[in-house]
Amino acid sequence: MKNMICFGLWLMVLLPSAAPGQKENDHAKIAERLVRTALEDEKGYELLRELCEIGPRLCGSEGSGKAISWAKATMEKMGLDRVTLQSVTVPHWERGDVEVAEIETSALYPGRKLCICALGCSPGTSPEGTVAGVLEVKSFEELAARKEEARGKFIFFNRPVDRGLTNTFAGYGSGINQRIRGAIEAARVDAAGAIVRSITTARDNVPHTGVVSYEDGLPRLPAVAIGVRDADFLSRALREDPALTVRLKLSCRMLGPEQSYNVMAELTGCEKPEEVIVVGGHFDAWDKGQGAHDDGAGCIQSLEVLYLFKKLGVRPRRTVRCVFFMNEEMGLEGAREYGRIAAASDEIHVAAIESDRGAFTPRGFTVQSEDPALLGRLTGFLPYLQRAQIEWVRTGGSGADISQIRNCRALIGYVPDSQRYFDVHHSANDVLESVHPREMELGSAAMAILAYLLSEEGL
Amino acid sequence: MKNMICFGLWLMVLLPSAAPGQKENDHAKIAERLVRTALEDEKGYELLRELCEIGPRLCGSEGSGKAISWAKATMEKMGLDRVTLQSVTVPHWERGDVEVAEIETSALYPGRKLCICALGCSPGTSPEGTVAGVLEVKSFEELAARKEEARGKFIFFNRPVDRGLTNTFAGYGSGINQRIRGAIEAARVDAAGAIVRSITTARDNVPHTGVVSYEDGLPRLPAVAIGVRDADFLSRALREDPALTVRLKLSCRMLGPEQSYNVMAELTGCEKPEEVIVVGGHFDAWDKGQGAHDDGAGCIQSLEVLYLFKKLGVRPRRTVRCVFFMNEEMGLEGAREYGRIAAASDEIHVAAIESDRGAFTPRGFTVQSEDPALLGRLTGFLPYLQRAQIEWVRTGGSGADISQIRNCRALIGYVPDSQRYFDVHHSANDVLESVHPREMELGSAAMAILAYLLSEEGL
Repeated sequence: MKNMICFGLWLMVLLPSAAPGQKENDHAKIAERLVRTALEDEKGYELLRELCEIGPRLCGSEGSGKAISWAKATMEKMGLDRVTLQSVTVPHWERGDVEVAEIETSALYPGRKLCICALGCSPGTSPEGTVAGVLEVKSFEELAARKEEARGKFIFFNRPVDRGLTNTFAGYGSGINQRIRGAIEAARVDAAGAIVRSITTARDNVPHTGVVSYEDGLPRLPAVAIGVRDADFLSRALREDPALTVRLKLSCRMLGPEQSYNVMAELTGCEKPEEVIVVGGHFDAWDKGQGAHDDGAGCIQSLEVLYLFKKLGVRPRRTVRCVFFMNEEMGLEGAREYGRIAAASDEIHVAAIESDRGAFTPRGFTVQSEDPALLGRLTGFLPYLQRAQIEWVRTGGSGADISQIRNCRALIGYVPDSQRYFDVHHSANDVLESVHPREMELGSAAMAILAYLLSEEGL
Repeated sequence: MKNMICFGLWLMVLLPSAAPGQKENDHAKIAERLVRTALEDEKGYELLRELCEIGPRLCGSEGSGKAISWAKATMEKMGLDRVTLQSVTVPHWERGDVEVAEIETSALYPGRKLCICALGCSPGTSPEGTVAGVLEVKSFEELAARKEEARGKFIFFNRPVDRGLTNTFAGYGSGINQRIRGAIEAARVDAAGAIVRSITTARDNVPHTGVVSYEDGLPRLPAVAIGVRDADFLSRALREDPALTVRLKLSCRMLGPEQSYNVMAELTGCEKPEEVIVVGGHFDAWDKGQGAHDDGAGCIQSLEVLYLFKKLGVRPRRTVRCVFFMNEEMGLEGAREYGRIAAASDEIHVAAIESDRGAFTPRGFTVQSEDPALLGRLTGFLPYLQRAQIEWVRTGGSGADISQIRNCRALIGYVPDSQRYFDVHHSANDVLESVHPREMELGSAAMAILAYLLSEEGL
């Protein structure tokens, strides 16, 4: 940590003595340097490449363990303070080698394979699979109304996302209950399983996984996502041949709980070390792709905030802490553990910033608060944030992980452009190549500017 | 044009009678429907696919003629008013089949090919090519200072764009004088030709073409762009072996002027037909790719404005005219001709909106004016424009083509996200696959909302 001095001291060395507007000038210069360094070095993108090369890192998996070791070593090599593993117990679900769906009985399409993948937490089938008819529905209401037809069948939830909404997260919201609760609703009507249209804006045939929920007292049915092209095909095939059956074979299974970790590091504040600004993302990722956008990039952007401070020789007044939370996708255990420890400590959490919406060009920050004073303070930072393409600060959700930090004054979500996110989300398309270096780096810079201002000014 | 009635009348049918705030409500509903229809239909993206499949459409070329015919037929099929070809004489430069650069004399790299392409308007070489040494410079000042070394050599302009700037158009501006004026400055020092580092933010090796200028009284030297990886290679090779020579063979040539056309269509205003709002882009495109972003998308977005009005049964109060300008890349003849005719007519050009910065997610509109009243009027439209992700209206450049319309009250440039644009600009990467349907459609919707408000409200 040598060669680093407090912002204040450092600015005294670097810049002429304080004058009216001097602070604003200094902030503007730091913001400019943070953006320039992020764009020139592309350090975050390089770290993301390293992370993606490790392989899938579904929580509890071997890959996840390797990624945790890599993260710890990377933070230590960077010379950060208090590199820490925070112990968490997580579920361990394994996809296995077999996930096959094919049309079995059909005059028109016997043997036609369907492009599917198991949803996370789904049980497998017997080795020979489950054979059943298919009932297509667009809503839970329709399913309830047709429950007599549903018995013993696969329930095919085939309502597309609403493509007409500007914000793709809203579009996602229009379809997601089918994936989350489809297997529960299917179990209520004694169905054989759930086949869910992929919740995506893409028009390709790649299936998009994600967690499926079960309810105690109901059978845990096998549940899969189907690519949207094959969803359209299956719908057409059912109109032509309503009696067709599908054979579904899945080898996925839930294994015992595993020991895992949040990974953390910080630059300890030089004036108010007990006041903390968290920057973070979740380190677990679905296994079909590399978790590049979701949420490798969010973790790396958080780490890059500290890298940029180090690179520019900046020591924050308040502590800036990067947290890689474990298991956002299947249970939030890492976030809860961090929240529990934070609540029990003497630290004051001034703010937390989460990046978990992809590594696209910055648009804004949403704050989980309607307090006008707080929003006003953050909006006052816009002249600096605009250099990283942040256009606004609004009331809105922050992020699943940081929401577990109680008594944090400001829970803030980083909001990049959303148009491409659900093309790749939870799918084999979520790979490094889908991340644009400059777009990712602007996100890192936006978070760094905000963390810098919060660490300088408090809230 | 049956089934279309004036906005006002149409709204009277569609909506409850006017009340305080009713106009704002109506505008908001139209904005919402424009965005939804653009995103759901993706009509513009489909039209862009058709256009890209025609093939390259460098001005004066056969492909350009086919594209003009396609555009006219498409506008007629759409049932637009006054589909018109406006005659323009344009230059005709042809790349030809041969563009080869390879290291000739070198102990280390004999025969090493360099990834280059001719710059537009460059003359060719003799069939056996030009063989010369290479002098690398980073600026015209350096070249002037080293003019003794430069004689008879290829001048290798190798200053990279400034990657540290947030706005890639500013980065482009930091390098572009090398491409535009490189051959002139090389001719001043009796050089053999110009090899210019591609003006791009990409890190691949694809060369990026573009126009090169010549000056009367100076020799017109052959000029090429080189991919940035090979630029880095050539720089290293020159350090190792300063005496190396390169053989450059180009078959490109300037042919006689050709007859070409602007293509136009409109929805004639139902109340003030003489007041015109232009939406447009340029229809010519560099030949290495498909001109998908530059500027096929800009043209199609402009056409889609009219498509959306038609689809929603909306007849504008003022005339909304779509113009595909011919030859922005090598001379602006189409823009000048449109401007000349506009100046001579009785029409009043209320506003012109140009899309020529790529088909990425909308960010804002820039207005070629500092008039606070005008900016205030346009900024007042933001609540509607935000639905298409437009965040701001600012003073700034509009576009090369519409700038030729004199006495137009508001010259407006559509500004999408810039991060990916110079990855593809003027290169073989500028193909349909680099356009994201939703991002492009939001641009169409943004332009449609603005054109609708201008046609309803005037300026």
